[in-house]
Amino acid sequence: MSVTIDSINQASGVIAGHVVRTPCVHSRTLSTMSGADVFVKFENHQFTASFKDCGALVKIASLGHDERSRGVIAMSAGNHAQAVAYHAQRLGIPATIVMPEGAPVIKVRNTERFGARVILTGETIDDAAVSAHLMAADENLVFVHPYHDDHVMAGQGTLALEMFEDAPDLDVIIVPIGGGGLIGGIAIAARAIRPEAEIVGVEAEMFPSMYQQLHGLEVKAGGRTIADGIAVKTPGKNAIPIVRDLVSDIVLVSESQLEHAVQTYLEIEKTVAEGGGAASLACLLAHPERFRGRKVGLVLSGGNIDSRVLSMVIEHGLVRDGRMVRLGLEIPDAPGVLARVTSIIGETGANIIEVHHQRAFSNLSVKLADLDIVLETLDSDHIGRIAERLQEAGFRVQPVEPVSGSRTV
Amino acid sequence: MSVTIDSINQASGVIAGHVVRTPCVHSRTLSTMSGADVFVKFENHQFTASFKDCGALVKIASLGHDERSRGVIAMSAGNHAQAVAYHAQRLGIPATIVMPEGAPVIKVRNTERFGARVILTGETIDDAAVSAHLMAADENLVFVHPYHDDHVMAGQGTLALEMFEDAPDLDVIIVPIGGGGLIGGIAIAARAIRPEAEIVGVEAEMFPSMYQQLHGLEVKAGGRTIADGIAVKTPGKNAIPIVRDLVSDIVLVSESQLEHAVQTYLEIEKTVAEGGGAASLACLLAHPERFRGRKVGLVLSGGNIDSRVLSMVIEHGLVRDGRMVRLGLEIPDAPGVLARVTSIIGETGANIIEVHHQRAFSNLSVKLADLDIVLETLDSDHIGRIAERLQEAGFRVQPVEPVSGSRTV
Repeated sequence: MSVTIDSINQASGVIAGHVVRTPCVHSRTLSTMSGADVFVKFENHQFTASFKDCGALVKIASLGHDERSRGVIAMSAGNHAQAVAYHAQRLGIPATIVMPEGAPVIKVRNTERFGARVILTGETIDDAAVSAHLMAADENLVFVHPYHDDHVMAGQGTLALEMFEDAPDLDVIIVPIGGGGLIGGIAIAARAIRPEAEIVGVEAEMFPSMYQQLHGLEVKAGGRTIADGIAVKTPGKNAIPIVRDLVSDIVLVSESQLEHAVQTYLEIEKTVAEGGGAASLACLLAHPERFRGRKVGLVLSGGNIDSRVLSMVIEHGLVRDGRMVRLGLEIPDAPGVLARVTSIIGETGANIIEVHHQRAFSNLSVKLADLDIVLETLDSDHIGRIAERLQEAGFRVQPVEPVSGSRTV
Repeated sequence: MSVTIDSINQASGVIAGHVVRTPCVHSRTLSTMSGADVFVKFENHQFTASFKDCGALVKIASLGHDERSRGVIAMSAGNHAQAVAYHAQRLGIPATIVMPEGAPVIKVRNTERFGARVILTGETIDDAAVSAHLMAADENLVFVHPYHDDHVMAGQGTLALEMFEDAPDLDVIIVPIGGGGLIGGIAIAARAIRPEAEIVGVEAEMFPSMYQQLHGLEVKAGGRTIADGIAVKTPGKNAIPIVRDLVSDIVLVSESQLEHAVQTYLEIEKTVAEGGGAASLACLLAHPERFRGRKVGLVLSGGNIDSRVLSMVIEHGLVRDGRMVRLGLEIPDAPGVLARVTSIIGETGANIIEVHHQRAFSNLSVKLADLDIVLETLDSDHIGRIAERLQEAGFRVQPVEPVSGSRTV
């Protein structure tokens, strides 16, 4: 290992005053919910809204005069792009960011806002990576890798220094794993500061590449996960041995666990976490028994979530909590029936959002019609009462199905 | 005035260690957006997620042994309810909270969670207030008013002490006005600490009751505003003279300005503000010229926003930013036409969310059909390009209309 507690301490000196010293704060409600004693490190309050600020600055600040004048290049469609562009601009270094062609315009603009030249090329992030390396060679630019770099890893390790400063007796730190730069740096720092602290990694079920690497499995990863920030197919070669030696366990979390964690941060902590940023909370809430009674530090690693995705997460949460439901009814196809159904629903205090009334394509008797109703409800008991009232009135209510709960965002 | 800087300083001692000392933090991006030098006081990070914690605790802590054993009663469907219930529970004092019958179940549950007895009575908040006063007399309970109380106002005034501690040279503090307890306390503290600082109040256009009071107008207030926390018809009698003497101006903000401010806090500060909580930012963003170049403190007073409302605010924001649009088209009612339309749209990179195809109820020729398409788009330029491409292909595109931009939440 070439990243050491000394290089992390040095990195801490480099970033001091130039990135936000985010707090690591105790959360009473998350503690009550999980049975652990929970502390949250709010890296979503960095200027570019993720921990990537730390590693990117440490790397860029390490460059000599000649390298700085050549300029830097990075490949990323997300947080690393913004962090590199921002710190390069601050230090007066030209920056080129390579993104895949389909990158969301909002991310392109956010990166351009920091004065970077943005090159859109290749269909996937892997294609873009190839182009970025070629361009780095062609134009003699310094490549700033998002995780496979000792300066970057040392920069990310500073998070652990700060967490132990704010909460010295943490028993566990739960850390999302993308390429492994963050967990690598944190694990090295933690072993030096508090060797008895356990480091637990989290990956999205769709991108379990570090887990597969360590378990000697074929690396198979892919899919549209809400945790795009940690959707990495090829973990850093520098991180693999560190994770093997110092991380006790890698937990895989599902999309709905990630969504639930994003929703929980929003409702309880009043804070915006992106999918990958909420992975450590997802792990804690999915396995409370594993952490019960212990002092647990969660790295909330970033807050850059697309607004539309956030709004869908909220709506999925409403469905999960029984506050929105779709009911399927068979009703006689006769005048006045819809009025009866809706007045029964109205009497229970539910609010009707959508009504779909289907005859032609129904497979019911011609005397019946299919009615699909989307309702605002109070909770699952309320849904039960509504279904009961409708059944008492002679309507057949088909099994309640989620509006959108199982959809992948 | 019976609230003084001394009573506010005393209140500060009372709450120290028992409510969260929230930070007042500089925001670079809000400063860039507005042209002012912006500091935000994050009262949404209080335990019950609003500044009401301060006033409620100062009041409850002021009660003698006899009053404590009798118990407290408060009337509120929102933040005050939770703050009184929470601090009463902490101090072992029985609490009764009176809410109107239609109060959202989630608010009832949050209040019950703190061990309070919740009484649902009356159709409106005014009916509930009458019942609460009757019940206080009947059961010999101590009434804790949300704003018309010197202890409460002194408690809210502690926010100004903290803001000047973190940002000593603020030129302006912008404060939402509901009953006036918050702005009253802040104005008194500010005059003692930094008399040259200007205090600006903000009300929702639908509830301009303090504005009307001060301008000798008939008080007319009502409507379903997103800023429910400051939807007050009767400002506190104690606050009116203070606001008249010490507040330079009351600015009224519209629903869409409030929504935009909630969205901005979410996207820029990664923080959840309720409608009333975002009122001071709404004021700043609506009138940047008034604050340009000055050091401005915004009180982000609370973060208790209903999840469904938050998700609607996000969607309205997408429409406002040109990231979601509804297009109306007239198309020939012939096979293959819908495929042409959708493939033109697909080529521009827009994503189709909904399609409504209408024949029977259209007032067009029988050879034409109405097509309503809801699209995910990149921005308003993108919408323009899509409309242009469709027109070039011979389709008549009706004026683009918002999906939901003007709806009141």
